[in-house]
Amino acid sequence: MKIANYLQLALLLTIASTVVSRVPAQSTATSVAPAQLSLMPVPASVQPQTGRLAISKAFTVATRGYADERLRASIARMTRRLAGRTVITLPLDLAVNESSATLVIQCERGGSAIPSLDEDESYSLEITDKQARLVAPTVVGAMRGLETFLQLVQGDRDGYYLPGIRIQDQPRFAWRGLLIDIGRHYQPPEVLKRNLDAMAAVKLNVFHWHLTEDQGFRVESKKFPKLHLMGSDGLYYSQDQVREIIAYAAERGIRVMPEFDIPGHSTSWLVGYPELGSAPGPYKIERASGIFEPALDPTRDQTYKFLDGFLGEMAKLFPDAYMHIGGDENEGKQWDRNPRIQAFMKEKSIKDNHALQAYFNQRVLKILQKHGKKMIGWEEILHPDLPKDAVIHSWRGPASLAEAAKKGYNGILSAGYYIDLIFPASQHYLADPLPADSSLTPDEAKHVLGGEATMWGEWVSPETIDSRIWPRTAAIAERLWSPRTVTDIDDMYRRLAVVSRQLEELGLTHERNYHVLLRRLANNDNTDTLRTLVSVVEPVKEYRRNQMRPQTMLSPLTGLVDAARPDSEEARQFAAMVEGFLSSAPRFQLYRSDIRNSLRSWRDAGVALDPMIDRAPALQEARPLAKNLADVGTAGLEAIEYLSTGIAASPQWRDAQLSKLDEAAKPKAALELVVIPSVRKLVIAAAEPPKPG
Amino acid sequence: MKIANYLQLALLLTIASTVVSRVPAQSTATSVAPAQLSLMPVPASVQPQTGRLAISKAFTVATRGYADERLRASIARMTRRLAGRTVITLPLDLAVNESSATLVIQCERGGSAIPSLDEDESYSLEITDKQARLVAPTVVGAMRGLETFLQLVQGDRDGYYLPGIRIQDQPRFAWRGLLIDIGRHYQPPEVLKRNLDAMAAVKLNVFHWHLTEDQGFRVESKKFPKLHLMGSDGLYYSQDQVREIIAYAAERGIRVMPEFDIPGHSTSWLVGYPELGSAPGPYKIERASGIFEPALDPTRDQTYKFLDGFLGEMAKLFPDAYMHIGGDENEGKQWDRNPRIQAFMKEKSIKDNHALQAYFNQRVLKILQKHGKKMIGWEEILHPDLPKDAVIHSWRGPASLAEAAKKGYNGILSAGYYIDLIFPASQHYLADPLPADSSLTPDEAKHVLGGEATMWGEWVSPETIDSRIWPRTAAIAERLWSPRTVTDIDDMYRRLAVVSRQLEELGLTHERNYHVLLRRLANNDNTDTLRTLVSVVEPVKEYRRNQMRPQTMLSPLTGLVDAARPDSEEARQFAAMVEGFLSSAPRFQLYRSDIRNSLRSWRDAGVALDPMIDRAPALQEARPLAKNLADVGTAGLEAIEYLSTGIAASPQWRDAQLSKLDEAAKPKAALELVVIPSVRKLVIAAAEPPKPG
Repeated sequence: MKIANYLQLALLLTIASTVVSRVPAQSTATSVAPAQLSLMPVPASVQPQTGRLAISKAFTVATRGYADERLRASIARMTRRLAGRTVITLPLDLAVNESSATLVIQCERGGSAIPSLDEDESYSLEITDKQARLVAPTVVGAMRGLETFLQLVQGDRDGYYLPGIRIQDQPRFAWRGLLIDIGRHYQPPEVLKRNLDAMAAVKLNVFHWHLTEDQGFRVESKKFPKLHLMGSDGLYYSQDQVREIIAYAAERGIRVMPEFDIPGHSTSWLVGYPELGSAPGPYKIERASGIFEPALDPTRDQTYKFLDGFLGEMAKLFPDAYMHIGGDENEGKQWDRNPRIQAFMKEKSIKDNHALQAYFNQRVLKILQKHGKKMIGWEEILHPDLPKDAVIHSWRGPASLAEAAKKGYNGILSAGYYIDLIFPASQHYLADPLPADSSLTPDEAKHVLGGEATMWGEWVSPETIDSRIWPRTAAIAERLWSPRTVTDIDDMYRRLAVVSRQLEELGLTHERNYHVLLRRLANNDNTDTLRTLVSVVEPVKEYRRNQMRPQTMLSPLTGLVDAARPDSEEARQFAAMVEGFLSSAPRFQLYRSDIRNSLRSWRDAGVALDPMIDRAPALQEARPLAKNLADVGTAGLEAIEYLSTGIAASPQWRDAQLSKLDEAAKPKAALELVVIPSVRKLVIAAAEPPKPG
Repeated sequence: MKIANYLQLALLLTIASTVVSRVPAQSTATSVAPAQLSLMPVPASVQPQTGRLAISKAFTVATRGYADERLRASIARMTRRLAGRTVITLPLDLAVNESSATLVIQCERGGSAIPSLDEDESYSLEITDKQARLVAPTVVGAMRGLETFLQLVQGDRDGYYLPGIRIQDQPRFAWRGLLIDIGRHYQPPEVLKRNLDAMAAVKLNVFHWHLTEDQGFRVESKKFPKLHLMGSDGLYYSQDQVREIIAYAAERGIRVMPEFDIPGHSTSWLVGYPELGSAPGPYKIERASGIFEPALDPTRDQTYKFLDGFLGEMAKLFPDAYMHIGGDENEGKQWDRNPRIQAFMKEKSIKDNHALQAYFNQRVLKILQKHGKKMIGWEEILHPDLPKDAVIHSWRGPASLAEAAKKGYNGILSAGYYIDLIFPASQHYLADPLPADSSLTPDEAKHVLGGEATMWGEWVSPETIDSRIWPRTAAIAERLWSPRTVTDIDDMYRRLAVVSRQLEELGLTHERNYHVLLRRLANNDNTDTLRTLVSVVEPVKEYRRNQMRPQTMLSPLTGLVDAARPDSEEARQFAAMVEGFLSSAPRFQLYRSDIRNSLRSWRDAGVALDPMIDRAPALQEARPLAKNLADVGTAGLEAIEYLSTGIAASPQWRDAQLSKLDEAAKPKAALELVVIPSVRKLVIAAAEPPKPG
């Protein structure tokens, strides 16, 4: 579900309503980790204790009670990561003697054989200077606790250790997902695997595998091989690979829910099977981004016979209880133009395309039920006949989710979690499936199962996708796991930086590939100057990228817009410094030299980039940005000069600077300079009459 | 084959004999690319022409004559890389109209169905301002030419282009390989795939897959499943994965030659099949590095029956004409202690273990012949009965290779190409399988087929292995492809830096993971100070790492020694600056301020690292190095001061500094400061009486 305007509105409203309620986590009712800890998601309850547990080469793990292969593999993975981080050789074998083990893990049972929505993921972790004890009803709970254990590792002159602590933890929501759209751009299995590892690290538990799109049909069908053979450019997952991914996810307590988006978003189905379409075809794989007309023909029994065969095959392949049928963005244009479909609607008294799609959904629902699956779809599927075990996937926001809940439907939220729209983590972080002001009764509130971050695939390659998912999705993972009251944005960013580095252990490339892209663009190993620019720009938000810089699915994703990050740390820090500086009136000394250094580096980089751009044509689109950056730096430096000397700038100066900043604020190359609001503040302040000290 | 002393000697002799013959490439008989080109390997003949061929979105490729799926896939891969580098959307479809195509590729035939030693890899490439024409007898030749085409891409204010040029090219040697030992540390298929891509980029054509070791048996055997199930910790390649790697390599014109190292290096075989051993067992997977006693029992028919079954199975799986049987480092200790084996030797008049191994090899040879394979083994297999189609793999050096050639045996060289020994690229670069002073007749010289870089796997993980192979192996690839006279080390390093960046396009991680390792060690995103230290150290050479810093195969490979690179660019540049500075006596101005800046950064980093090390216990082993670095910086700064003022330092000062440098030169944490020789020169010069100006 990707309709832009509605979503943006929902997202912005969500943000507007929550941004004012920023409450430091420390002041809430829930125990929250003290500042020196960097747990993410924050556990339900954290009680620091005295003492510390040293990590040495004598580190061992023992299990107690239930233990199985999945638990042992989890322990081995944790041990390997601990060894990698501490550079200590740790034994791979489990300890025989529980009393001397460094970490004792006690489980009651394995948990669901197939990861399930009902899984008990709770755990408790107690660390003393003698031992760590992790207790969980299920192996999945133990896995969640092992991630917390790893996040607790710290170091000082005396070595690595874990602080004394008592943690009791369980998720706020049972459904905490990440959708990856591999329809528009295929991602090889290793990309999915490393992202599953990252999901597990931040306690996400649903991989929503968006497998079919206008631009690609990415799963092997043995029954209907023309689906993947003609609809994927050869870029699809074999059923063996699908099973491998499902097993990999299950090993980490992660459900794998497939989505087969119908009746719209189905061009790639129709390349091999045009007879399923609502227009005669022929069809070819779509290369553009946007909403396209092709839709399955909902009036012919042959369509349902095909879906019965195909979805039946997929129901066997994917063990999850749920199957997502999409259902979004079908505008019905093919239906409008097809006389046979029009006649069918008349005959059956189907009044419009929405009702026709409801008819389609009803028949698909029966197919899913026949194959033992529960249906989930984007909120368009909501209809009086929909059985109550279907799940509504909301893209409009918490309000529509609440409405469905009042009708008795379970639902999950993705509005606010559209990570492809390039909003900063802070915005996603504050979108809550069940906000404080929710009107739901406690029983109704139980229908709100959680949410999913959505990595739509228009502009992501295997090289860049991690940087679009991480680290921001860790903030969403915290929203879905941690108590509602955990909303301190500054603290979130502090911890996010730590988690981001830890994700690199798992092979995630969000940080390392940033430099690779810049080196390639600059055709040079020294990218310092280029980084000065790129660190203060962000890609344009929402769906504006393609308007400003049109591309197809065949275009390279190696430009400056692909290297730039969604969430400029430099801009955030600069903004904080400017706030501090302005609040230090009338002497204006706080952060003054840091601010000056930043402004100078922008002014100088703007000039120094020119020769690099001359040698690197792919950077030519950045030339106006470089000039803007120099202007912004200069304006800021002049403002600082006025403020430091206590002489008010003239209104003419101010207006000239503001107009320069307005020009600089216009996106170029689908990038925007995100430090301008802060510099604007400096310029405006510089022209205000000085206040007496 | 890994015996250290002999090899080091051979390597050092090779270097000593060739380092004096450094001749600028430009002055050789062969046409060499002009300085602005960065081709690697340098083609056999390059003639610059006027004009340039622009790369725009109108870029198209047409084929002429023979074309097949492999060629089309190669063109598609080239186009994708070109698009990625230029950030231009390029069409994927081939041009219909040859005359308007940007690049026309003309092949005569596909080349061997299975990549073969006899493949014709030659090509010619002509670029004018209208068109590029790539002509090759085979598709493999065209692939080699496409890599050259990509290396020719340049950019300036007017955009991306290829310079006008005429290239005629073919390899000097037909066998240009890279051995990867995945026995000691397993590497997942994606690591092998990206390294195959990198091999193709520098025109290597043999992937020598070292599949079995004391520490791991890494290939699935359906006949003898206990081999991989009990001998690999679960880390092995399924036969499907093997086929996938072979196909991936074949797509790139690369042979895949498996090695099953016998009779020694076989502990992992014996875990599941102890009855094959020369001692009763039981056996377990070896975790240490070194040479171990277990060896197959060469006296029992059962051994050969087993090998017939196993090697027969592998002969079907691996289509290459050659099978490598290792044969190295069997010291025969198990044989000495086994009375039955001793009795067998007596009975058959086998005089020593070497003769017993020859007997073993003869029987293995018959098995290979039965299964249609030619034998290759380390040079120990050389024996009067060895048939002439066997290949000798030399680890002693060009002399022993020449000796084998005189006897009529084909051979390949790996002495000098042991990239695991952490020598700089310049040393490997000058090792030549057929040196200028070779005593071989032209006919004998034909027996020298080429060489292989050997990535032995003691200390490489998937995270670090690329940094041990690349970029240095590109220099070896050039040695094996380019004319013998191409030996300019400075020019090699200049081009190596460019090729290194291009390898990142293919997903190689040698550069990106360097920063990842440092961020993790520092537990901080800012690693500037740490990089100042690490950029001027190198891991200790040869096999000293494990003596200084003992580890097992289960140890993490995430320490500073794993992050440090084999070939410090900073040290190389510093050495060149010091040469220039000292040659600018008596004024000593050349590079003075650059040298001072470097020395100051070392002095300061040495101090600034302390608090970082306090927070990052994994860095504690670097504390003495940090102090040494500060001392080196201070000594150098004082020397510069003396030289600049023209006052000679006292012998006491000099001796005190030299003794400090001696102390600093001692390796710590298995690392050595490689800038010390240059600073030593400064210190000595500072105490010399000033010469009149």
